[in-house]
Amino acid sequence: MKAVMSIVLGLAAAGVVGAETVKLPAPTGDSGVTVVQALKARHSERAFSEREIPLETLSGVLWAANGFNRPDKRTNATGMNKQTIVVYAIMKSGAYRYDAKENALVKVCDEDLRPAIAAQQPFAATAPVSILIAADLSDPIYSGAGRYLSNYDAGIVSGNIYLYCAANGLVTVCRASMDQAALKKALKLGDKTALHLNHPIGYPSESK
Amino acid sequence: MKAVMSIVLGLAAAGVVGAETVKLPAPTGDSGVTVVQALKARHSERAFSEREIPLETLSGVLWAANGFNRPDKRTNATGMNKQTIVVYAIMKSGAYRYDAKENALVKVCDEDLRPAIAAQQPFAATAPVSILIAADLSDPIYSGAGRYLSNYDAGIVSGNIYLYCAANGLVTVCRASMDQAALKKALKLGDKTALHLNHPIGYPSESK
Repeated sequence: MKAVMSIVLGLAAAGVVGAETVKLPAPTGDSGVTVVQALKARHSERAFSEREIPLETLSGVLWAANGFNRPDKRTNATGMNKQTIVVYAIMKSGAYRYDAKENALVKVCDEDLRPAIAAQQPFAATAPVSILIAADLSDPIYSGAGRYLSNYDAGIVSGNIYLYCAANGLVTVCRASMDQAALKKALKLGDKTALHLNHPIGYPSESK
Repeated sequence: MKAVMSIVLGLAAAGVVGAETVKLPAPTGDSGVTVVQALKARHSERAFSEREIPLETLSGVLWAANGFNRPDKRTNATGMNKQTIVVYAIMKSGAYRYDAKENALVKVCDEDLRPAIAAQQPFAATAPVSILIAADLSDPIYSGAGRYLSNYDAGIVSGNIYLYCAANGLVTVCRASMDQAALKKALKLGDKTALHLNHPIGYPSESK
């Protein structure tokens, strides 16, 4: 609880740009963990500490997931460079769309949607943040035979999240389970958006 | 050409275990490149040098893609830990299945299948190696609604390959295009295997 409050306070302190937009700080500095070290440490974990994730670290997670590493291109590859992935940060204080260009979180829902992320697996709601990996399928290439092309893009984002977490002392697990209907309703998303994967993220549970 | 011959000679020197199995050396040492540095450098590239990829480096690419980082688990997450991904190294000297447990390449075809990987994009056949990311869909979870679950797994492998390449001076691009029918025939694969993605990999072209 304390952790969640810290995130909320952190968001407030970070500066509200619009009524519903929170500018994120720059990502946390390079932890120095190498790609090989992160690949060795990469694993899935389902127990989380209540410890907060500092906003700088959340900013880093989001950048690793779907941020810009060049003026017009991303950390994550997408098929035909369609950059169709949209990620959300799902927290107790609400649900936020990551605006990668502005390095900001745009609030889209006041509710705590972590139970909808968790669905039948309550452990997932205990993580302070879940990253929801969605895709905008309004481009015609995603109709017909291309319907599942953005699944690959979502997987690439998941891979980046796993390695960034492994490099920053965070634990996570990739899940395809979630309450799709509840999430789409709360996030005001229609048939042209696919909700692919989610990543509960936190620090390791102290009880382990 | 010299590069390809070096790989062939390298394979021979590495020790033929069976008639068609080549034991790989241990992966190349840690390049020291951090996750954040690799995420900053991550990009797609479509021009390749003829320079060979040392077997130690190929061994590292394969380990990053789908190797074991624990006795029974992998560098790459898979849905429900089904470990359903199978990767192939497609080279001039033939096509090899990566046996992650043995850190070996098992030859499955004598032909140079890089043109089948390239299909309508000849640049892709100029890379000394392409990693073909396939999935064994014989588990019942991949029937019906689960048909496309392994697409996510393939994407995670692609993400690992991108970051490992970025950390080791290699360039690559993720592609979904390929001559599926020709590859399935040559690799003796049936309807229970999905050919998801491929990654031509090489050193950057000197001409750039």
